Amino acid sequence: MVPAEMTAARRRAAKKPTLGIDLGGTKILGGLVSPQGEILASSKKKTRAEKGPDQILERLVNVAIDTARKAGLEIADVAGLGIGAPGQIDHGTGSIVYAPNLGWRDIPLVEHLSEALGIPVALDNDVNVVAVAEHLWGRGQEVDDLVAISVGTGIGAGIILGGELWHGFNGTAGEIGHTVIDQDGPKWKASNRGCLESMASRMAIALRLEKAMKNGQETSIFEETGGKASEIRSKVLKRAVAGGDPLVIAELEESARLIGIAVGNVINFLNPEMIVMGGGMIESLADVMMPIIEKTARRCAIANAAQDVQIVASELGDSAGLLGAAALVR
Amino acid sequence: MVPAEMTAARRRAAKKPTLGIDLGGTKILGGLVSPQGEILASSKKKTRAEKGPDQILERLVNVAIDTARKAGLEIADVAGLGIGAPGQIDHGTGSIVYAPNLGWRDIPLVEHLSEALGIPVALDNDVNVVAVAEHLWGRGQEVDDLVAISVGTGIGAGIILGGELWHGFNGTAGEIGHTVIDQDGPKWKASNRGCLESMASRMAIALRLEKAMKNGQETSIFEETGGKASEIRSKVLKRAVAGGDPLVIAELEESARLIGIAVGNVINFLNPEMIVMGGGMIESLADVMMPIIEKTARRCAIANAAQDVQIVASELGDSAGLLGAAALVR
Repeated sequence: MVPAEMTAARRRAAKKPTLGIDLGGTKILGGLVSPQGEILASSKKKTRAEKGPDQILERLVNVAIDTARKAGLEIADVAGLGIGAPGQIDHGTGSIVYAPNLGWRDIPLVEHLSEALGIPVALDNDVNVVAVAEHLWGRGQEVDDLVAISVGTGIGAGIILGGELWHGFNGTAGEIGHTVIDQDGPKWKASNRGCLESMASRMAIALRLEKAMKNGQETSIFEETGGKASEIRSKVLKRAVAGGDPLVIAELEESARLIGIAVGNVINFLNPEMIVMGGGMIESLADVMMPIIEKTARRCAIANAAQDVQIVASELGDSAGLLGAAALVR
Repeated sequence: MVPAEMTAARRRAAKKPTLGIDLGGTKILGGLVSPQGEILASSKKKTRAEKGPDQILERLVNVAIDTARKAGLEIADVAGLGIGAPGQIDHGTGSIVYAPNLGWRDIPLVEHLSEALGIPVALDNDVNVVAVAEHLWGRGQEVDDLVAISVGTGIGAGIILGGELWHGFNGTAGEIGHTVIDQDGPKWKASNRGCLESMASRMAIALRLEKAMKNGQETSIFEETGGKASEIRSKVLKRAVAGGDPLVIAELEESARLIGIAVGNVINFLNPEMIVMGGGMIESLADVMMPIIEKTARRCAIANAAQDVQIVASELGDSAGLLGAAALVR
């Protein structure tokens, strides 16, 4: 039997808001989230990954405290802090094993933050927490099984099966960006030849556009970006689409088709009830990309699975990560 | 509360053997299986799919009765009958929705057989029952999560997650044969361009060899097969490998590499603890194919997942299907 006072403490904690932090390569987004998924307060800082782990850890503590304070609360009034972080997580120790975007290896994030803040802290992968948010408060509220696919600089997925996050044996499940869809496709650094990320991510599109600009092809984005891949952000692409730029539109359509093939592969292999597409590229470019992703995926999927699967765009926007992170400590 | 006599009846049933039938496009394999997975008796008939559903249903009933009789039992002494069948299953009604190998559409198999035999009958996909057998009595006894991949005329997979078969939303999960690994690859009938099955199944290899023979390339299998794809069975390939036939060996190595890419995709996406490779091609040709499948899959998979996943060949041979089918009614 659970002692009566413990049950009461749990009841009180269940009514308290939790903090969620989305730790990205460029920014840290914090939110105080009610048990119903409302964002009661939020704050934002630059990550400044180049300054090293100690600085980032300090910034995370500050974002947590600031966010609570904005709602008139002390950290002790918060039931816990959840973090969604890029890279590979050790779920046993609550460490970040390797996060290339942050330049981190073996950082005991949960230990550090729970000591610094004195509240329970939970950690999961940035794409996994998005899947949690979609399931609890987004497009996937009515389904038990979904795959949330995030398309941005890279491409990743979070998998919910039977209402629970599926982490896999090493906690690395969802690495759809590394799956090969064209054995003869391009190869980047450590990635697989012809993997989805090297063919259809924002970075892949930006590199193709950079090359096209070098080859003298005309596009409206040349002036704004100086022809540099690193300057080709989702919003630049969005403006180019609005202006009817044929080169940019063709590249986006090609990437959407490739993503559609990968979504079809997921439907054939796992037969989920829903695919939720999100991330910066989908947020900015759903109009161009979603119809092609959906059409290609349904064409590639076997008949019954193709007929019934829901393929939808996220409506949680930039808050998906912090919402899902906040749910980790519930 | 469960009435005492019902519990006793369940206990008695749990000690009884069950029947398993592997219904294939060419043969029907039946086995009487103890609760510990021993095959107490078995029998075999040709499917003769061309004679239509009624004939096959009759043959299934006869295989069930014959198999029990060989062990000195009546059907009433058997706890139930499980069937593994090709094609798409309606798990709600126990019907075969569509099985191209049998030429069947909407056949209420469970209803028919349970009426004819008077015992509980269960039905699942032929590759799913193999996954069950591997988990209960094969290579996957020590793991909770595995993907069993069957390579034969076609290529399919059964997925065990948390010790249970994963059917997906429509019961179609595991269709790895339709996943695309080369967007510019060959296209067959209704299959996806560059899907695994159209590039790496026995049929794909046979078609490539047929073409090579037509183009006058030399191979030891020409005389035996008359240059016809339909005659190129796994055992023909096995003999050619034993004789050092360079053309056949090269085609098998290429297929193994492609299967390895697909296995790598599964590891990246689902991060299972174990991959069990089986089916006629692996049974006959594991020596040539398994090292390449394993090496390619580990190269394609991200580091931690690649390091820890077990990639093994089935040891259940031709009995995997009937063993798993027999377990369906436990």
